Amino acid sequence: MNDKAKTGDQIASAIEAAKGRATVKDIYFVACGGSYALMLPNQYIMDRESGEIAGHALNAAEFKARAPKRLGETSIVILCSHSGTTPETVEAARYAREAGALTIALTNDAGSPLDEASEYTIYYEHEPKQISPDHSTAVLTRLTFGILDAREGNENAAKVEEALKALPSIVDAAIKSHDERIATFAESHKREEVIYTMGAGTNYAIAYSYAICIFQEMQWIHSAAIHAGEYFHGPFEITDYDVPFIILKGLGASRPMDERAIAFATQYSDKVTVLDSEELGLGAIDSDVVEYVEHMAFGTLLRVYSDKLAFSRGHPLTVRRYMWQMEY
Amino acid sequence: MNDKAKTGDQIASAIEAAKGRATVKDIYFVACGGSYALMLPNQYIMDRESGEIAGHALNAAEFKARAPKRLGETSIVILCSHSGTTPETVEAARYAREAGALTIALTNDAGSPLDEASEYTIYYEHEPKQISPDHSTAVLTRLTFGILDAREGNENAAKVEEALKALPSIVDAAIKSHDERIATFAESHKREEVIYTMGAGTNYAIAYSYAICIFQEMQWIHSAAIHAGEYFHGPFEITDYDVPFIILKGLGASRPMDERAIAFATQYSDKVTVLDSEELGLGAIDSDVVEYVEHMAFGTLLRVYSDKLAFSRGHPLTVRRYMWQMEY
Repeated sequence: MNDKAKTGDQIASAIEAAKGRATVKDIYFVACGGSYALMLPNQYIMDRESGEIAGHALNAAEFKARAPKRLGETSIVILCSHSGTTPETVEAARYAREAGALTIALTNDAGSPLDEASEYTIYYEHEPKQISPDHSTAVLTRLTFGILDAREGNENAAKVEEALKALPSIVDAAIKSHDERIATFAESHKREEVIYTMGAGTNYAIAYSYAICIFQEMQWIHSAAIHAGEYFHGPFEITDYDVPFIILKGLGASRPMDERAIAFATQYSDKVTVLDSEELGLGAIDSDVVEYVEHMAFGTLLRVYSDKLAFSRGHPLTVRRYMWQMEY
Repeated sequence: MNDKAKTGDQIASAIEAAKGRATVKDIYFVACGGSYALMLPNQYIMDRESGEIAGHALNAAEFKARAPKRLGETSIVILCSHSGTTPETVEAARYAREAGALTIALTNDAGSPLDEASEYTIYYEHEPKQISPDHSTAVLTRLTFGILDAREGNENAAKVEEALKALPSIVDAAIKSHDERIATFAESHKREEVIYTMGAGTNYAIAYSYAICIFQEMQWIHSAAIHAGEYFHGPFEITDYDVPFIILKGLGASRPMDERAIAFATQYSDKVTVLDSEELGLGAIDSDVVEYVEHMAFGTLLRVYSDKLAFSRGHPLTVRRYMWQMEY
């Protein structure tokens, strides 16, 4: 349904519209669940890279309830819903547009309610065990850097485009090289009732989506995403020899935080799985921008981990007891 | 050590300094763990009430690693550490001050490294099973509204001061009225291995601190704070008849979100504990500002719940296996 030229054109149109606004003070990144998790690295990008625009990431229902006072003509609101039907996100788009904000939506479904509700729409590709510049998370990053570059000039925008092109083959190779580790992980974790995830910087987003979408939603395994910087201020007391963690070790500004958490967790738990951006081959990416794309490598690789885990547990990722089964 | 006149004077001095800045574009709320949780309602206040200043809440290590590009002369950085010795928070204060930001610290300990590192310091009272306008969470709220009022004018600032004065007797009465429920909760939950917490708006902060500081840290019970708006986009699939939740029902903008989550959770779990702001007597507070103070009532009441739970489990809240036991 999507062709890449079209996705590129749609991103360009949205950036052009963002450039055309007289003043932009805020970008709100608004969605729910897994799509909300995709927004977090973009809020991070705004903090790191923008001199003029504040970035905010909010769950769509929280966004509407909170009704930010600054929301208006000086706002861009970026939304995402895979099906384009998530009611809270569609509502948020209508609300933001009515307030005068520029609304830009990402969805996998043209003609969906979110598409209709938003001024600009970008369609993305979807294949969770692969990554490309036209996958949702990459499209969002291109959009965020594109807006930054158009409005303020940004030296990293072009580097990010290059990094996204290099990513698919790095991730494919990483998945192949983890074949044995994935099988070992699945067998050794198939009877776990709790698995924690941990990360910092952009990688916290992956820790969060893995905890809520894979473990809690698709595997009915108790989980929580722990921010590596918060770990030592409470959560670390839960660590014990039999408590499993998946910890993401990035190559960006948060690496020292990751290393500290890993050093502690591996000392007191026998069940720590570390995914290291460097070991995955991300060291080949320009060090100025690797932190903006490495979460995409973690997310894709971890999806392959969950396929194997689901098989070992006899609990397919597609099984739900409430979602799609009833009104709620 | 603290006298109330002094706390009030210190808040006033910090507000005066904030007023004196030529331009303020951002307030960063920076701390770790339980003190970080205190920051979240203040970030919420900025979203709801400020027309000119963006609010950001960040873990102190994440703040320093992220190194926000906008940080500088147009920034206020508000920090908190109970002991005043949390290394990441002290580092963050130094970093922010060097960048030209106005630094305002809250601590229970005068002369502590955080006090030394920050331009302005406010000392607060500490008695977790009570609340007063001079407790840390209330002091932060007075500071945030004070800065807002001084810089932009704010109609709710005076109402919040009144609400904080009314709060202590409401909370004392709520604690007394929950006496039996607290005992029942403690006995019925003493063998639970996982307890989830849930909230939205300002109350999410209490859900978060209860999950990480009480359950994980002080009771070694697995936990995660679930945002009520995120619940239906993943986490709700973990709900089952034997999965316990504590859910906070507020009287503010997020009440419909809370109600939806409670309706679902109580239908599929037999172990849902709902704390309702209205039932606690918060309906007596001005409805324009109740959402800015109700989390303090939840936090104080829940602390009494945890005392009783700790007793039933024979696991005092003061026991740690890592914290205070070793270097990490």
